[in-house]
Amino acid sequence: MARRSEPPTPQTALHLDPTGVLRAILTRSAVRSYTAEPVPDAMVESMVRAMVSAPSASNQQAWAFVVVRDPVRLHSVRSFAPGVIGEPSLLLVACLDHSRYSDSDGAHVRRQGKLCVAMAVENFLLAAHALGLGACPVSSFLPGPIRLLLNMPDHLELILLVAAGHPATKPNPSTRRDLDEVVRYDGYR
Amino acid sequence: MARRSEPPTPQTALHLDPTGVLRAILTRSAVRSYTAEPVPDAMVESMVRAMVSAPSASNQQAWAFVVVRDPVRLHSVRSFAPGVIGEPSLLLVACLDHSRYSDSDGAHVRRQGKLCVAMAVENFLLAAHALGLGACPVSSFLPGPIRLLLNMPDHLELILLVAAGHPATKPNPSTRRDLDEVVRYDGYR
Repeated sequence: MARRSEPPTPQTALHLDPTGVLRAILTRSAVRSYTAEPVPDAMVESMVRAMVSAPSASNQQAWAFVVVRDPVRLHSVRSFAPGVIGEPSLLLVACLDHSRYSDSDGAHVRRQGKLCVAMAVENFLLAAHALGLGACPVSSFLPGPIRLLLNMPDHLELILLVAAGHPATKPNPSTRRDLDEVVRYDGYR
Repeated sequence: MARRSEPPTPQTALHLDPTGVLRAILTRSAVRSYTAEPVPDAMVESMVRAMVSAPSASNQQAWAFVVVRDPVRLHSVRSFAPGVIGEPSLLLVACLDHSRYSDSDGAHVRRQGKLCVAMAVENFLLAAHALGLGACPVSSFLPGPIRLLLNMPDHLELILLVAAGHPATKPNPSTRRDLDEVVRYDGYR
């Protein structure tokens, strides 16, 4: 791609709408009730593209994702994921890929990789929300049986699941702690 | 707030623009070169509100954040964070707050909390990008000295830093692995 000799600030060039982006972030909340309508391929494509645009420590991209939409597989995976509420038409299995690391990469580096998987999941959730879908991250699941069901290689470590689908009900935003309690400026007194 | 008796699908009601949101997610990349211009208070407010809208496992919100903008503090923190490149006008210190857990909450629950901190950081990065700022998550830092400098209580565990400011250069998006390599459908063959 040709580089421009006098670049404007990149966001001006991109015509991003801060208000719209912030509204999407602020209004996302967990959706745990879905209609039976499947999620169209084009939406899945948008969500996974958003997902892999997340930050990646040292650009290692030590992640792997399985999108489960086949009803039989979905049902099986769900039976080993008590944290999945409702009947999502899609489950995402988000993993750390240890094969992307060398033996010299220690626990610290791998911990960073897990944080990147979480950031990728947040992008997936935001994309789903922007597209009119509802989704919910799930941490209560049995990795062993799910790994077997999906024939997953040993070098993948399951980090999070995400349930997603067309929302059946209006989401109920969770209450949040006061900002003053959670955010400090320039340190603690 | 009054509830509507016949809710439209929530995203319709919200008038979210999926294209705009997805573009913001897809075009965000690490920015490591900043002008000296400070980040206005209103932008900081927007970014921290976006941050605390991230998913929180069991809505525990076991997180705490320090926004460092005072030039002297910033310089001091930066000297213990070799991962910070350039001269950001703002540093975010993102922490897990162990005081939000009880003794019966095990390692698994706290690991989930770290993932939520990472998702909050991703929201912060996306908000910064949408607002025309540049930012970069940083995992190379010395928690001990930074904790002392900011007088942080023992129950906070430093997870990530974020450097942010007005971008001095056009960001250079990192190359990403092929989607086919990273995303599988319904399992591995």
